[in-house]
Amino acid sequence: MSVSRPFVLTPGEPAGIGPDLCLLLAREAQPQPLIAIASHSLLAERAAQLGLAIELHDVGPDNWPSEPAPANSLYVWDTPLDAPVLAGQLDPRNGRYVLETLTRAGRGCLNGSFAGMITAPVHKGVINEAGVPFSGHTEFLAELTHTEQVVMMLATHGLRVALVTTHLPLKDVAAAITPERLERVTRILHNDLVSKFGIAQPRILVCGLNPHAGEGGHLGREEIEIIEPTLARLREAGLDLIGPLPADTLFTPKNLEHCDAVLAMYHDQGLPVLKYKGFGAAVNVTLGLPIIRTSVDHGTALDLAGSGRIDTGSLRVALETAYQMARSRS
Amino acid sequence: MSVSRPFVLTPGEPAGIGPDLCLLLAREAQPQPLIAIASHSLLAERAAQLGLAIELHDVGPDNWPSEPAPANSLYVWDTPLDAPVLAGQLDPRNGRYVLETLTRAGRGCLNGSFAGMITAPVHKGVINEAGVPFSGHTEFLAELTHTEQVVMMLATHGLRVALVTTHLPLKDVAAAITPERLERVTRILHNDLVSKFGIAQPRILVCGLNPHAGEGGHLGREEIEIIEPTLARLREAGLDLIGPLPADTLFTPKNLEHCDAVLAMYHDQGLPVLKYKGFGAAVNVTLGLPIIRTSVDHGTALDLAGSGRIDTGSLRVALETAYQMARSRS
Repeated sequence: MSVSRPFVLTPGEPAGIGPDLCLLLAREAQPQPLIAIASHSLLAERAAQLGLAIELHDVGPDNWPSEPAPANSLYVWDTPLDAPVLAGQLDPRNGRYVLETLTRAGRGCLNGSFAGMITAPVHKGVINEAGVPFSGHTEFLAELTHTEQVVMMLATHGLRVALVTTHLPLKDVAAAITPERLERVTRILHNDLVSKFGIAQPRILVCGLNPHAGEGGHLGREEIEIIEPTLARLREAGLDLIGPLPADTLFTPKNLEHCDAVLAMYHDQGLPVLKYKGFGAAVNVTLGLPIIRTSVDHGTALDLAGSGRIDTGSLRVALETAYQMARSRS
Repeated sequence: MSVSRPFVLTPGEPAGIGPDLCLLLAREAQPQPLIAIASHSLLAERAAQLGLAIELHDVGPDNWPSEPAPANSLYVWDTPLDAPVLAGQLDPRNGRYVLETLTRAGRGCLNGSFAGMITAPVHKGVINEAGVPFSGHTEFLAELTHTEQVVMMLATHGLRVALVTTHLPLKDVAAAITPERLERVTRILHNDLVSKFGIAQPRILVCGLNPHAGEGGHLGREEIEIIEPTLARLREAGLDLIGPLPADTLFTPKNLEHCDAVLAMYHDQGLPVLKYKGFGAAVNVTLGLPIIRTSVDHGTALDLAGSGRIDTGSLRVALETAYQMARSRS
């Protein structure tokens, strides 16, 4: 099934590799209409720097495209910069510009103009230097869409890992694993696997918090006091949840074949194996939003901007995942 | 270089798959003399149950073998059981027997009779039920050899992961990462890579404690206050240490090619990716002991004992690693 509404791609930090990624990608035709929300002149300059002949077609609210652009061309919703850009050189004056591209993308998804948004990396530090408190794409989009709780999930071929807690100091993780949070996150993961990934009865493997999932209480009691009762309650509500399982032995081919996602309790419990398995081809998906949003899993790589020596693997997976989610959306 | 002293193998829990593993392995000749420290009658019965024709040759302190046994035979240092064994049925009466096999192995390594010991899994619960406080092989051998601090390292082809903390509830991990512990563990890892693995200048990649290694203090300050100063001090002492690095992006092929070991701060930060990469062929090595000790990375698998449907992969790697360590030992 084809989706006629366009997808939008935000190149993020203009001095980073985001613009390069969009241009390198535009060498091939996309299966869906795809619009870069960025400065036209930035893309034109970066294309010249990279030696790429990519035709830029301006589009806007009066003329959204309904067909994919051909190879070597890219739709652009021109969004003016506030200062000239030199590849690799951060400039706080363009912080506002970056947020404007995200706002345009998010609002367009919310009002139904766009089928979904795919984001290239931003630089948190320079946006904060610009005087705008900004803690990341995910939090920004949660606020824009009035979403109370979002869930970070990373995916690669054959493995999806969602996180109960994300960017917390390790010492604060155990206290953050409350029944309320665990239930909210698990429900969002379940619901989005159904509604955005088209999986009728998703099976979720849940990690314990402690080593060996607490080993019957000998290595921590959160499994007994918090995780098991919460999972039991959710199972009664019809969710298919296995666990809590020891994280170190969970990631076997046999286990992964028979599940749709792994729910890890914290960042470094779930992501090292995901990124090891999916190196260069992992996608970050924000669950819980009323819109479809995927992202690359890497940073701005300022030192590589303008060099052409970058891998578009993660962006490709981010695009494919967004297309697939839009098709599956119920 | 051949090592003439024999290696010893403890099959561990008699009702588990340890005896089966020894017998399945004995179908092929080993490159080194290898003695099972176990009940002769247990091995004979389990061999019959498995339909294996393995000749058992009794050896002891008066006649240690100096040549490998041929295929389909196994040296046994007979160690009597206290109760009959039924595969799959734990019996606390044999708890003392299990510890006796470990004591014989450990003392023989200490006094130079044996070149090293390889352990199959024990069942902690049943030994404790037998009235002997026992928290694991590693702790038992540390006490037997009067070693204050040991370090747990898991290894598989192309990756070694050592741990600063091991079997601690997650909530206690951050407080356990002290400069003293980190320095002791890092020095043991470095020294054993030199002295037991024959690596002249080992390079060690060190994980941060917090997600993104603390992201400059925004996600926790232990990197700045504890890990970085400790690594700096150890670098001045000549150790080749990279980090602290974010654990989720550390395990790339390029990083791993250029290091000899990864030092993770805690159990579930380092072991999921090690066990995912090395599934069925990972070995647990205890560093810091005055003896060579390796172990399989799996449990007693009571339900599979006597079935023959088990994989000897991890035991093979444990043996190969012990042989290699003995050759490299300086």
